[in-house]
Amino acid sequence: MLTVLFSAPAGRWTDYEGPLTRALREAGVEARIVTDTDAPETVDYIVYAPNGGLSDFTPFTGAKAVLSLWAGVETIVTNRTLTQPLCRMVDSGLEEGMVEYVTGHVLRHHLGMDRYVAPEAPGWTRVVPPLARDRQVAVLGLGALGAACARALAALRFPVTGWSRSPRAIDGIACFHGDAGLRPALERAEIVVTLLPLTGATEGLMDAARLGWLPEGAVLINPGRGALVDEQALLAALDGGRLGHATLDVFREEPLAADHPFWTHPKVTVTPHIASETRPASAARVIAENIRRGEAGEPFLFLVDRGLGY
Amino acid sequence: MLTVLFSAPAGRWTDYEGPLTRALREAGVEARIVTDTDAPETVDYIVYAPNGGLSDFTPFTGAKAVLSLWAGVETIVTNRTLTQPLCRMVDSGLEEGMVEYVTGHVLRHHLGMDRYVAPEAPGWTRVVPPLARDRQVAVLGLGALGAACARALAALRFPVTGWSRSPRAIDGIACFHGDAGLRPALERAEIVVTLLPLTGATEGLMDAARLGWLPEGAVLINPGRGALVDEQALLAALDGGRLGHATLDVFREEPLAADHPFWTHPKVTVTPHIASETRPASAARVIAENIRRGEAGEPFLFLVDRGLGY
Repeated sequence: MLTVLFSAPAGRWTDYEGPLTRALREAGVEARIVTDTDAPETVDYIVYAPNGGLSDFTPFTGAKAVLSLWAGVETIVTNRTLTQPLCRMVDSGLEEGMVEYVTGHVLRHHLGMDRYVAPEAPGWTRVVPPLARDRQVAVLGLGALGAACARALAALRFPVTGWSRSPRAIDGIACFHGDAGLRPALERAEIVVTLLPLTGATEGLMDAARLGWLPEGAVLINPGRGALVDEQALLAALDGGRLGHATLDVFREEPLAADHPFWTHPKVTVTPHIASETRPASAARVIAENIRRGEAGEPFLFLVDRGLGY
Repeated sequence: MLTVLFSAPAGRWTDYEGPLTRALREAGVEARIVTDTDAPETVDYIVYAPNGGLSDFTPFTGAKAVLSLWAGVETIVTNRTLTQPLCRMVDSGLEEGMVEYVTGHVLRHHLGMDRYVAPEAPGWTRVVPPLARDRQVAVLGLGALGAACARALAALRFPVTGWSRSPRAIDGIACFHGDAGLRPALERAEIVVTLLPLTGATEGLMDAARLGWLPEGAVLINPGRGALVDEQALLAALDGGRLGHATLDVFREEPLAADHPFWTHPKVTVTPHIASETRPASAARVIAENIRRGEAGEPFLFLVDRGLGY
């Protein structure tokens, strides 16, 4: 009988108890799940989300892996006490939700919806938008989430450029990579979606220089990580007219402070980190599969490369 | 050398002169295009849009077909002077634009975007929407436009019910038809899209009774024809809470009167008939292909059935 420690904010256990119990049983794993333990050395696997109280992994001398409930692992990957294998969450529900948010907000900006949803002066002024086939979109980050979004946008006939650290090939997407590839990915993009992992190399990636590569009036959609964007450079680009709008789901500090200028800026839409989240039913199946693999001696899914940070 | 009369509001000729000349040449059709004529009996084909001044087709004794620039032909199909074959426009640009509008506004309502685009009280209140797979959508009308929209929504994993007058089968869509099929198509639909042709049988289709079949809080999106919806019943359903919102692109009278209650109703979004429109480049190819077919003795594309009205 394995021992699995579920370490996450209190409310998450309510969401996960049923799905995780069921998923482990369906995976053929015999385990008891605990939310606290007096004998950390007896724990076999740690299911982990930030803000659950656990920050020192040293006492878990027998743990075979730490299984993150989050896709982004930047808050834990630098934890020096974490020496066990660390796996990211790649959840089909997370991916579906992200595709819906990104596709929806790209179409919102493409169609110019805001002028009808919140009209300054209602009136019958017909401006038919161009077709998607004539609207260039860039997706920065071509991991599971970015690639799924790029594919969904291409299926709607948007011409899509993609950018990633290392080379990627995705049917129907013009893929660029590395430092030299960023400018060609950005310079014709009327709408940019940032879905990169947060690492030393991506922090502040969208700075004044990179925002300046975009065509005048471009729109930034950031459902990735707040720190991918230089906030001051973003506000300057919006105020100076270089950027037409920014739709932001993630922020350097969350919740976003009540007096932050984003809340009231006429060219900023704030969504409160709702683009997507891990769904208990599908995420529990990923956790259970990784525990099954660990016990069977098979390689873990979504193992984090500590050097890369994701 | 054929004579083609282009009869449409003046500005359209500016849009079409180049594309239509090019499309006829590419189709191998030798023709001169005129925008007016003193010798109606010499006209071989009439390219037609409403409001171009032509209402009596009697003098065009040699015309082999009337080729509509519009998808909806309800304003011309009842014209008793029109005895020539009448063809609707089925334009790939029109279809693409409609798919973009419908997908965008379905995602807007699905994601609850309005509360972030035009917040009543900005604040960090996280409400993650359900996945598309758990949001039932109905598409009424499964012609070229309706079927394309239904497919695009199903590709985003929305469960889609479709409804049409006569039986249709579309992969991935639960298709209903006829009077008996309307209620099962509607009764679980949280978002309904009306894309039916306007005929005697569809006028006022969405009346108090049918709106009452929808689940509480459902959203209506009408990019089809204004008269598909009973306006008074719609307002009553919105005010009574039965409907959550209506996004309307088309109206019984256009432009919508400045004092119409739709403009200021908090649960109504008005877009000024911009969901889609015929695009000159692709529409001109459809016109040219039909003239080529007429001359070759081949059946016309998109020939209107006068009995059905579309």
